[in-house]
Amino acid sequence: MNKYKRYKRVPVVSMPNREWANNEIRKAPVWCSVDLRDGNQALIEPMVVEEKIEFFNLLVKLGFKEIEIGFPSASQIEFDFLRQLVDRKLIPDDVVIQVLVQCREHLIQRTFEALEGVKTAIVHIYNSTSVLQRDVVFSMSKDEIKEIAIEGTKLVKHYAKDFPGKIILEYSPESFTGTELDYALEVCEAVLDTWGASKENKVILNLPATVEMTTPNVYADQIEWMNKHFKNRESIILSIHPHNDRGTAVAATELAILAGCDRVEGTLFGNGERTGNVDILNVAYNMFSQGINPELEIENVNEIIDVYERCNKIPVHIRHPYAGKLVFTAFSGSHQDAINKGIKAMNDRKSTIWEVPYLPIDPSDLGRVYEPIVRINSQSGKGGVAFVMDTYFGYKLPKGMHKEFADVIQKIAEKQGEVAPEVIMQQFSEQYLEKKEPLHFRKCRIEDMSDCEGDYDTLAKVVFTDHGKEIIAEATGNGPIDSVKNALLKELGINTKILDYSEHALGEGSDAKAAAYIHILDLTTGKATFGVGVSSNITRASIRAIFSALNRLNEE
Amino acid sequence: MNKYKRYKRVPVVSMPNREWANNEIRKAPVWCSVDLRDGNQALIEPMVVEEKIEFFNLLVKLGFKEIEIGFPSASQIEFDFLRQLVDRKLIPDDVVIQVLVQCREHLIQRTFEALEGVKTAIVHIYNSTSVLQRDVVFSMSKDEIKEIAIEGTKLVKHYAKDFPGKIILEYSPESFTGTELDYALEVCEAVLDTWGASKENKVILNLPATVEMTTPNVYADQIEWMNKHFKNRESIILSIHPHNDRGTAVAATELAILAGCDRVEGTLFGNGERTGNVDILNVAYNMFSQGINPELEIENVNEIIDVYERCNKIPVHIRHPYAGKLVFTAFSGSHQDAINKGIKAMNDRKSTIWEVPYLPIDPSDLGRVYEPIVRINSQSGKGGVAFVMDTYFGYKLPKGMHKEFADVIQKIAEKQGEVAPEVIMQQFSEQYLEKKEPLHFRKCRIEDMSDCEGDYDTLAKVVFTDHGKEIIAEATGNGPIDSVKNALLKELGINTKILDYSEHALGEGSDAKAAAYIHILDLTTGKATFGVGVSSNITRASIRAIFSALNRLNEE
Repeated sequence: MNKYKRYKRVPVVSMPNREWANNEIRKAPVWCSVDLRDGNQALIEPMVVEEKIEFFNLLVKLGFKEIEIGFPSASQIEFDFLRQLVDRKLIPDDVVIQVLVQCREHLIQRTFEALEGVKTAIVHIYNSTSVLQRDVVFSMSKDEIKEIAIEGTKLVKHYAKDFPGKIILEYSPESFTGTELDYALEVCEAVLDTWGASKENKVILNLPATVEMTTPNVYADQIEWMNKHFKNRESIILSIHPHNDRGTAVAATELAILAGCDRVEGTLFGNGERTGNVDILNVAYNMFSQGINPELEIENVNEIIDVYERCNKIPVHIRHPYAGKLVFTAFSGSHQDAINKGIKAMNDRKSTIWEVPYLPIDPSDLGRVYEPIVRINSQSGKGGVAFVMDTYFGYKLPKGMHKEFADVIQKIAEKQGEVAPEVIMQQFSEQYLEKKEPLHFRKCRIEDMSDCEGDYDTLAKVVFTDHGKEIIAEATGNGPIDSVKNALLKELGINTKILDYSEHALGEGSDAKAAAYIHILDLTTGKATFGVGVSSNITRASIRAIFSALNRLNEE
Repeated sequence: MNKYKRYKRVPVVSMPNREWANNEIRKAPVWCSVDLRDGNQALIEPMVVEEKIEFFNLLVKLGFKEIEIGFPSASQIEFDFLRQLVDRKLIPDDVVIQVLVQCREHLIQRTFEALEGVKTAIVHIYNSTSVLQRDVVFSMSKDEIKEIAIEGTKLVKHYAKDFPGKIILEYSPESFTGTELDYALEVCEAVLDTWGASKENKVILNLPATVEMTTPNVYADQIEWMNKHFKNRESIILSIHPHNDRGTAVAATELAILAGCDRVEGTLFGNGERTGNVDILNVAYNMFSQGINPELEIENVNEIIDVYERCNKIPVHIRHPYAGKLVFTAFSGSHQDAINKGIKAMNDRKSTIWEVPYLPIDPSDLGRVYEPIVRINSQSGKGGVAFVMDTYFGYKLPKGMHKEFADVIQKIAEKQGEVAPEVIMQQFSEQYLEKKEPLHFRKCRIEDMSDCEGDYDTLAKVVFTDHGKEIIAEATGNGPIDSVKNALLKELGINTKILDYSEHALGEGSDAKAAAYIHILDLTTGKATFGVGVSSNITRASIRAIFSALNRLNEE
């Protein structure tokens, strides 16, 4: 249909001498949450006052020092909310409240009424400056549009004079990304001049990507261009306010930080009009994962998700970076194997630096647990199954056993898709621990007859049933396993060779049980299999493992 | 807790002479969907064969010419799926099937078995080359790792020789973003040499961000570095395969396209391991919205969402660019007003280029409808309410009436949050159309007595009830409205002035009804209000509007 022809390419900035692409992010910007304004206004069900207060308290707890709480002159609810914050003394001394207002006197006046009793506030005025809006919405000239900004600045200055608290001015040339750079600069400079901005009396100039219109490098060019052209840069706190229409708001924010912005307005999980604002958490976790102090307390992501989802009634997507339910999940067997090896190497080397393939961040650093990391499906392979048995249930299957057990799980996975850890454990029980027929071990008595001088000699007396019939077998051997094996040979004629044996504690402490793994070759048939036994008595665990293996051999 | 100190900054590329940041995207890359492999393997419930076939058919319909369908040597299900594609003749002649396989002989052999009967296939081999994986996973030297790639290439070459169809080699230095650039180049060159790559026998070199590790500009630098260092660039199709761990895969893809890659591997809506692969639709719609042919048929996003959600059992997020339920929704009143004006200006100017504030794309170009664009809440203001009345119900409220009616809705919104269009219409009916007490218009007879020469003169005879009592009023005037007004003055003593009047058809055709709006000032009380009437008879509509207004005046 070629409908793409209805759209035109947005002009880019010619900046052959750009510097941002040579920079690296070294510190966090000043964060300003606009969840309670830009975020809230885009909710299907806007928050009620108690939800707003819960959200506000979360933002404070996360360490936000600047919080835009609404547009109090436009809505009675937002006016009342601000009054509650003040009256209930919910604003900490180090947190600055920000309010949005258009450049109109009765609205600015009403805004100052709403602010009564606030110690420090950012009054954020804006007007749209883009080519398109000047044309189709306002039908105004550049000078007329600039005049709106100047007039708004004068009004805030006027009302600020008699306001008992401190007022910081913020000005946004709204739809900045659709505005000619030189004109945006001209309007901003007019605001700075009108306010009398200085190093001691800085103005926040906020350059919003009201609509994200280009690849993020162009936004960075725009920010760098502005950053380099201000007459008096030290009188400015350079702020950005990206939206996510092209799905690149996080990138645009990072590149704008490279380009020299000081401050970022955004929301948790990117809530906001249409595709949303930039996701501050995403940007902050990106810094975190590169060893940069994010200047936010974001180490309990579950709490953040909980409050966010409850108040905003928007779910966090399962693939959301850092917070999504599946993002610490490795499905592929080779990934699982590599994760396994990476964690082992870190532990072996006692490294404090996190370096694990496929896991850019340690889930536990965000309050997520390891448990859900590995899910097993038909793609997982043997490494994944062994990993689940180890991390979920503590069974360290000997390497030779991985394939034998993974084949069991693979068959289930090919039938039903993903296999839950519980199902894997259940299969492990059925296939190994509960293999009690036809030979059912009942009890045994082991006498160690070594004389500490000559050969070791162990006498095993084993009681078991064979197809329900009780048998008592007795033999000596070179230790418990060997003597039990000999007893079984003597009584039943089962001729086997022990190929491998291992045993480990399940959990810690003296009451921990032991798991024993035995790899047995049937010398008559040439078949081999593993058997597993568990007991609080380590000898009994190995005898159970023998019976487990013999019963498995009998089946095949 | 400072856990961020456990992470280190990923080294960047020193590239003062980078060129990509001066480039613009001018054409779409070759798209390769990996939904059925990388996407499918990361699903909680992997697709069953019939779902895979439905998904495959969708990909073909969207215009994908390269589709990675699985890892047939690793799973019987994926082997069987490929056989079904062949046996059921589902692969169009212009679509190339791609299969993933490790560099191991028995797997490559099995892969060629699975491909039997395929006309053209891409055999995609890979091995991990990163510093970390060489160290902790493989414990191999650089030469040993390179040897794996060379050996894999030789094996594919060997089996390709006797394969009746055409085989294209793809090689991925997996975990490329964690690999030293010069070493990645060395491995790639070894693969090219081993294969005997040439302009006529190109090899796809795929540079995956297996884990997204840096800001997207660094990925672009890496791609440009590789792009500039290949000995024989024309023997290569340079491909990328970005993941989204830092939430910037779309940006990384766009910047890598600027840096000269030819081909992009990704998935619909960014499904894939952990945070997912790059979202090809997002990148393609970004091109679309800039007037660049995306080379994909993506103008029916609802169908894509439908198949995707059904087969993958993952919901598309409500703020997903272009596809999310809320992304064409404007909540803010000023946004709604600007959208309204933008659409009007486009229509007035008969412009074919889409330029509307806050709506980077026309929803209808993606098969989305206007209907859900505007939701009304306490933030919306008068423009939004008028917009809903117009776009949903066809009522073009006169400008002077916007505030009067918006105030009604604002009160509801402050109580209940969002107000659905149906509720707005219901309020409009209650407040205007159904205002039938105390004065209830019954019927009228209008005689136009103008003589075509002198003054116009209209005689109106109106029958109505006042608190249930029937009244017949008669008067002349300067047209129907004036004469009805006079009749009411004469009979009831209601002295009014008509401030404004307008009327328009509701819908098209000769059976369309008309809506009349009348703004009436009560000269006794000084109050003014609007009234609205609807009728298939334009005169009757205006008389109803008068009664509507008078009844409203009576209330206030």
